[in-house]
Formats: sequence, structure tokens, C-alpha cells
Amino acid sequence: MSRGRFITVEGLEGAGKTTALAGIRAWIEARGAPVRQTREPGGTPLGEAIRELLLGHRQEGMSARAETLLVFAARAEHLEQVIRPALAAGEWVLCDRFTDATYAYQGGGRGLGSEAVRVLEDWTQGTLRPHLTLFLDVPVATGRARAAGRSEPDRFEIEREAFFERARAAYLERCTAEPARMRRIDASAEPEVVQRHIEAVLSEVFGNDG
Amino acid sequence: MSRGRFITVEGLEGAGKTTALAGIRAWIEARGAPVRQTREPGGTPLGEAIRELLLGHRQEGMSARAETLLVFAARAEHLEQVIRPALAAGEWVLCDRFTDATYAYQGGGRGLGSEAVRVLEDWTQGTLRPHLTLFLDVPVATGRARAAGRSEPDRFEIEREAFFERARAAYLERCTAEPARMRRIDASAEPEVVQRHIEAVLSEVFGNDG
Repeated sequence: MSRGRFITVEGLEGAGKTTALAGIRAWIEARGAPVRQTREPGGTPLGEAIRELLLGHRQEGMSARAETLLVFAARAEHLEQVIRPALAAGEWVLCDRFTDATYAYQGGGRGLGSEAVRVLEDWTQGTLRPHLTLFLDVPVATGRARAAGRSEPDRFEIEREAFFERARAAYLERCTAEPARMRRIDASAEPEVVQRHIEAVLSEVFGNDG
Repeated sequence: MSRGRFITVEGLEGAGKTTALAGIRAWIEARGAPVRQTREPGGTPLGEAIRELLLGHRQEGMSARAETLLVFAARAEHLEQVIRPALAAGEWVLCDRFTDATYAYQGGGRGLGSEAVRVLEDWTQGTLRPHLTLFLDVPVATGRARAAGRSEPDRFEIEREAFFERARAAYLERCTAEPARMRRIDASAEPEVVQRHIEAVLSEVFGNDG
């Protein structure tokens, strides 16, 4: 291992991200590669403080632009403190949500549009992009039914179905626009089927390199 | 009064902003215009929470990009919740620091450069800019001597002199680049002289309009 790899997992609530992350992590570890698992928003002390502002209910009325700038503030810190150093050290960074979630939730859900997100993506990340993004796709109703009752819903989870439909549509657009990087996984299938699909993609993309 | 006016006051610590703000407020009120006095970072509940992250000492290592995105997140909320509605209602908005401070502290002090700040300014503000900005200019050493011992120094106030020299230089550059909007006030003069200078500028810029 000389170069790190950057893998992100995306999906609406109830898509099965937690299970998928565990499976991906096991797949990487089976190759003997070091894994750095992290999440957004968060991943650093500052990022976790920003996560509280974003998900908490104190700020119901937050403007879409303020929300998006906060997301990228947490991301800037995450990149500098965690992601770039880990990649430079040859680690495989496995991140629960990243910038595609901003295209989905703020660009699509909040209606800010993808161009506005793209400006901040370039500003914050430079040319850094994930090597592979797995989008765990489930119909909105399926995901919400699976996630129901898990915990107190956060400031996003209380949104109406139309918000999540817009977010899902934005995710699917990203898959179409960047088919080599961003793969749609049918996450309404049985867990074993989903896991085999993910492993097939990992093998195809990373083969035996590294 | 049908249209609001947007006046911002800038300056390093110890430049005399508090006194100047009171004088400007009195000048506006003497015209019978409604004043909305506010500050950055802050000005809204979300903005004040962000201010705590920015000024507190929990996050000493914050990256320059994360810091700048946080500043603009607070600003986006401030614009949507306070500044734009007040201006639309015909109020005179008087703000203790605004985007010129970001050019000074993050663009200059942190070394991010003015072009990076300009991208976020456009993204966050669209075409909105202050009608008038008063830069209270004092030599760094004078300001620091005046401000010394006022209160526990915040995350910016603990910076070294070179940081404030870069910030001051960036402020002066802004005055040169936008002489109609941004006026340098020699704030090392006696308080009465400073106040007369400020009032002369206010009268020149706003005359008897409104």
C-alpha cells in the first residue's frame, strides 16, 4: 500500500448504510489495508460541534445557504485534519456521507441547485474527490419505514416526503453524471444480495491494485 | 424614508468601534430614521452559536477554510433573518464588522487571499454590499495597547502582531480599491476629531437623501 483510497457511502435514512459500511470495512481489512472510518457532518471536534448545530432542533429556521456553508465548514476541517493526512499516509478512508449528500440534501432537498453546491465543493476541496461512492438506493417510503422509531428524528428526518424525493432524485442524477465514480446499489434487495453487489463493485474498481 | 441604508464599521481591536457606533447611531437617529444595530459574527441565534465556535478556545487548530466558511454561514443567516428584512423595511442597518473583516482577518491575517474571500462573498451575498463602510484605522500597537486588559482575549486576539499587520494592510487595500464605499478614518486622533470626521463622511455620503 502506498496510496490511500477514498470511499464514500451515501443513502437516505434506512438505506442500510451502517451494514454496508461494516461490510466494506471487512472487505478492505481482508486485503490487509489500514482503514480510517469516519462520518459527515462531523469527523473532528469542530465538525461534531457543527453537526450538533445542523441536526439539532434549536435552529429550525436555518437558511439553506447558512446550512450549506456550515456543512462545508465541517468538511473543510475534516479534510485538513483527517481525510488528507490519512490518504497521504496510504490509508483507505471510508466515510459515511460526503459531498454527494450536500448535492442531495441542500442542492436537491432544499432546492439550492447543483451549481451552487459545485462552487463550494471546488472552493473547499480543490480537486479532491472520492475514488468510489456507493449510493445505497431505496424508495423513500421503504427507507422511512425501516428507519422509523430508531431514535428521535433529527432536523432533516422531520422533513416531508417530497424533500427526500428531491434528495433521492439528486443522488440518482449524480450516479448518471459520474458513472465511473458513483455506483447505484439497489438497497431494497436482501442484505446478502446488497453485500455481494457492493463487493463486486469494490473488486471491479480496486481489483488487486495497491 | 423609503429605502434602507447599510453602514458597516470596521477596525482592529482598540480602534474605537464602540464609540464610533454610538456616534453614528445618534447621527442617524437625529435624522429621524429607524436604526437596526447589529454585529458580526453573530446577529442571530445561529450566528451567535457560530460566534462561540469562532472566538472560543476549544478549536485552536481550526483550518483557515473552515473558519472562513463558518464566518459566511453566520453571515448568510444574518442577511436572511436580519439585514435584508430591515433594509426592505427602510431601516438603517448599522453593523459592527461585516465582509471587509473577512478580507482582513481570513484573507489577510490567515493568508487565504482576497480572491478566495470574494468567491464566498458573491455566493453568500449575491450583489448586496454596504452603502458605506467606515474603517477606523489605528497602528496595530496603538490598538493593542488601548484594548489590553479589557477582557479575556478571544481566539483572534491571541494572534501575533504580524497577523494584525496583515489584517490592517488588507483593510487599507480595500479602502484603496473601493474609495467611494470604504472610507479610512484616522482613529488615532482625539475622540472628538474622529467623531467629526465620521459625521462629515456621513453627511457627504447620505446628504439629506431619504
